[in-house]
Amino acid sequence: MMRHKAWTLTDATHDVWLDSFATGNDRLGLGPGNWSMRKRTLHGGLREGVDLIEVDNGALSYIILPTRGMGLWHGLYHGHFLGWRAPVHGPVHPRHVEQAGRGGLGWLAGFDEWLCRCGLSWNGPPGEDVHTDRAGRQRRDVLTLHGRIANLPAHFVEARVNLDAPHELVVVGQVEEGMLFSQRLLLTTTYTTVPGSNRVVIHDVVENRGGEPAELQLLYHCNVGPPFLEAGSRVLLPSREAAPISARAAEGIDTLDTYAGPVAGFAEQVYCYDPVPDASGRTLAMLYNAAADRALVVRFNRNELPCFTVWKNTGALEDGYVTGLEPATNYPNFKSFERRQGRVPVLVPGGRWECTWSLEVHDSKGGVAEVLKEIAMLQAHARAVIHRVPQAKFSEPPAPA
Amino acid sequence: MMRHKAWTLTDATHDVWLDSFATGNDRLGLGPGNWSMRKRTLHGGLREGVDLIEVDNGALSYIILPTRGMGLWHGLYHGHFLGWRAPVHGPVHPRHVEQAGRGGLGWLAGFDEWLCRCGLSWNGPPGEDVHTDRAGRQRRDVLTLHGRIANLPAHFVEARVNLDAPHELVVVGQVEEGMLFSQRLLLTTTYTTVPGSNRVVIHDVVENRGGEPAELQLLYHCNVGPPFLEAGSRVLLPSREAAPISARAAEGIDTLDTYAGPVAGFAEQVYCYDPVPDASGRTLAMLYNAAADRALVVRFNRNELPCFTVWKNTGALEDGYVTGLEPATNYPNFKSFERRQGRVPVLVPGGRWECTWSLEVHDSKGGVAEVLKEIAMLQAHARAVIHRVPQAKFSEPPAPA
Amino acid sequence: MMRHKAWTLTDATHDVWLDSFATGNDRLGLGPGNWSMRKRTLHGGLREGVDLIEVDNGALSYIILPTRGMGLWHGLYHGHFLGWRAPVHGPVHPRHVEQAGRGGLGWLAGFDEWLCRCGLSWNGPPGEDVHTDRAGRQRRDVLTLHGRIANLPAHFVEARVNLDAPHELVVVGQVEEGMLFSQRLLLTTTYTTVPGSNRVVIHDVVENRGGEPAELQLLYHCNVGPPFLEAGSRVLLPSREAAPISARAAEGIDTLDTYAGPVAGFAEQVYCYDPVPDASGRTLAMLYNAAADRALVVRFNRNELPCFTVWKNTGALEDGYVTGLEPATNYPNFKSFERRQGRVPVLVPGGRWECTWSLEVHDSKGGVAEVLKEIAMLQAHARAVIHRVPQAKFSEPPAPA
Repeated sequence: MMRHKAWTLTDATHDVWLDSFATGNDRLGLGPGNWSMRKRTLHGGLREGVDLIEVDNGALSYIILPTRGMGLWHGLYHGHFLGWRAPVHGPVHPRHVEQAGRGGLGWLAGFDEWLCRCGLSWNGPPGEDVHTDRAGRQRRDVLTLHGRIANLPAHFVEARVNLDAPHELVVVGQVEEGMLFSQRLLLTTTYTTVPGSNRVVIHDVVENRGGEPAELQLLYHCNVGPPFLEAGSRVLLPSREAAPISARAAEGIDTLDTYAGPVAGFAEQVYCYDPVPDASGRTLAMLYNAAADRALVVRFNRNELPCFTVWKNTGALEDGYVTGLEPATNYPNFKSFERRQGRVPVLVPGGRWECTWSLEVHDSKGGVAEVLKEIAMLQAHARAVIHRVPQAKFSEPPAPA
Repeated sequence: MMRHKAWTLTDATHDVWLDSFATGNDRLGLGPGNWSMRKRTLHGGLREGVDLIEVDNGALSYIILPTRGMGLWHGLYHGHFLGWRAPVHGPVHPRHVEQAGRGGLGWLAGFDEWLCRCGLSWNGPPGEDVHTDRAGRQRRDVLTLHGRIANLPAHFVEARVNLDAPHELVVVGQVEEGMLFSQRLLLTTTYTTVPGSNRVVIHDVVENRGGEPAELQLLYHCNVGPPFLEAGSRVLLPSREAAPISARAAEGIDTLDTYAGPVAGFAEQVYCYDPVPDASGRTLAMLYNAAADRALVVRFNRNELPCFTVWKNTGALEDGYVTGLEPATNYPNFKSFERRQGRVPVLVPGGRWECTWSLEVHDSKGGVAEVLKEIAMLQAHARAVIHRVPQAKFSEPPAPA
Repeated sequence: MMRHKAWTLTDATHDVWLDSFATGNDRLGLGPGNWSMRKRTLHGGLREGVDLIEVDNGALSYIILPTRGMGLWHGLYHGHFLGWRAPVHGPVHPRHVEQAGRGGLGWLAGFDEWLCRCGLSWNGPPGEDVHTDRAGRQRRDVLTLHGRIANLPAHFVEARVNLDAPHELVVVGQVEEGMLFSQRLLLTTTYTTVPGSNRVVIHDVVENRGGEPAELQLLYHCNVGPPFLEAGSRVLLPSREAAPISARAAEGIDTLDTYAGPVAGFAEQVYCYDPVPDASGRTLAMLYNAAADRALVVRFNRNELPCFTVWKNTGALEDGYVTGLEPATNYPNFKSFERRQGRVPVLVPGGRWECTWSLEVHDSKGGVAEVLKEIAMLQAHARAVIHRVPQAKFSEPPAPA
């Protein structure tokens, strides 16, 4: 069993609340390495009252946002910025996000994270989800863009340090998405990093705490801008198929793998991938720069997260030049379409879903080359079919005008 | 005149604010009894920043939520839990409640109280209230579920102790519901309990602070789960008539008085009652358990609160197994229907409406039997007509499909 | 260059935050005069968490609301109240304002300021703005009443005192209005007053921080009630044309310049003016009382703010008896109409718009008479055409019923 030192930072149920917190290897002296974990609350502007937990493993650091559903605001690896420069002065407290506003697109007002979860009961575009539920009842649920979880605060947060090598630094958080006459899903997320490493491992468990079967949609919106994204950057993953999600995305199919520099007014393009895994389901995707010496790698398991989406939003730097690498339970179509495709898992009462995946950073040609080799080996098992136009299995045709 | 000691906890107008507060008989030494009153602010999750005032009279305790319109979160009587286990980790700060969200049902995201006021300008389901106001103007008001008051914070809160026996413990709060081009109603609520007693008395005054006549709708949503609600629990009140509010409720008319245990997926059933009062208007309703040794009693005056509604929502425990006992100015139909039935009182400018009612708890067979006797005596004055289908005077027929 | 002492009160980006702050001439001893600047945070009710900065120049004082887009809550000049008594217990924290609520009119729930900015991307009534943007894309933007800026908190606030005479007292604030797939506009506002003077000068700069051209709409909603507004008060400005915005306003055209006392149920009336400036563009408007010994003057530059609107809302005192003097880039019609009239300036990426205007108070017959003379001299250059019915250039005809 792991011997660890643990600090409860928040436990709303039991009235535990630390206004601020700090620990580090200068205090604990667990071997070499200069790591730390800190909690504080931000002030002023849209960030007033937002809590953050800064984990620095000595090489890689990242900021967890309990106030925003345990997302990752941004990070640094050997001084390289991890995240993007969103056109909003975040992190944004949920109280400034009116999700039903702007025709259901109000979620965008809070969106500026490196990692933002879209879910848990739904993700994708807004609309009215008219359907018959498992109990045979007709429902009309008004869905807003990308669901509620990113704007719900954690009611439980704990920091832990493993006293035994390799002295993992761990932050656990719990966020519940529920309300009367709705689903009740509990997210328990665990971020783990080893001091000095280039990786953070995310372990998420979603439990159905309600008394009826519950649908789950969860998409990990990992967003990256410079210095990983630039003109000539590439995105690669081993895949059986890839397809543009829309006519607009089809326009860019010839440059599926590559990125242009910032172009003011660029309209977003989205591509759906069917990843090729190894025998255990493991697969990965990589975004790397033009010189192939800086990369962000997303490692995930296709048995847990069968869908992968690339979001290209290479507008002006000032408008949020960014790409999204998005492992998920589904593609980001309207929920009813994903349900019909069988891509909305159902959890029985008390049932749980979980996944383990990681964000990994490289800043050497050697590191990038190794990952390219990994991808090539997986791709060797399957021919990649690149569809030039949207496919019925990946996305819904637009309604006739 | 009452000699009392008083503490202003909040007075926004005069910059009075106590972060925390505590008093009790250990300090004041007013005869026997171990009572206390405390104020503090909650932290973490959806409850971050919610103030609460805990009143413990030595036998009965309850928690008042100034941040949520002076509702009662939950209580305890001799260790018995008063309230329900809502499928949300509350109490929920109003900033997390987007009332216009989910098609006007966003109010549900904050609903977890033992006592929640629905009003003041309207309650009932969401919709567009197209009507001609008293000044002859056409209005189109967009109403959200159950009105604004439960998500408005009190701007004035005072705690008082009567220095003379029986040393009542009193909390007064004021909440204003107003905005330009709208009604302006001021709620002044007073919670009073006698040390050692089994009762809290609620005195509410609503004043029209605007310059034009104002409509009032106020429904007291008293919500109870186990250990008062269980398979075999019963609800009784002396009534002239009772009717299901809908076809769904009509399905349960044979078990009008009784409750089943939790049934996953149970769809709510609502019943409207016309209570029988005594010569002074006094009447009451009781929910009691299968063994008839635990009960929650709601005492009210039919001259002030002419309508009584029972809400049966006996779904799974995890989904909020609960029943509502709801004395009110009206039945929970859409406002325009209630207006047509003459059940929406109008307050002239400067006018006031008030009511006094109470929540009472019993935990002995003797106590329950006494209340049953009271109910029977009132019922003796009138034959109770139980309608098997919805009645035009109690509820609006559904729109044809 | 100005030698000044400066205090950063808020700088969210650099983690600067002063919970409270105070300075004054008693500390700094800069010549005569009894001025002060203070910052604090309000508690209780709807104002919980609202920051305010009180500037008192010894004769004129005003309260700036960083939490509400740097608006002015209210002021005092020689004891005369500047502002109005809105039917809401403000100032209201933006978290209690659901802008999409009430059919897009939710903004009203927070409206109680002396000076409230309406903008920046739009102002005017709510609705769906279907249009083709400058990049040729079809857009459907859901606009809410009077835009976002008044409910966005400042991320940067600084207080300054000029060490040289006349020792101006300065407060600078920055508020950004942005989000993904939207415009990104930065407001930098500077409030300046000279100790002992009767004036505050407002200098606003709006910069387009996005990568695409951005539209700007900005209306300064200056709201005044008693003791400046009363039966017999008048509003005057030099104008070429004035017109009622609607049939309702046309009903009051015979009393365009004058005000009635409070009348319960009075329906608002709005008038559009084309102001006459001097050779430099300078012009002004004045509201003065029946005795012509108290006045609020708005001085502005027609080259910067070409449109002027008067809002008469002389309902009951309790419902917010008030008039608005509103210099602006546009008239308060729906954005698409103003766009078609060429009254929506476009800022290129990096481009800026600015204006300097002032609020000035008089409390003597002599002061009022001097301003009347100024207005008369400007009016001497142009005949004022008063339209008795709405004009196509000032307002959109109502849709046929």
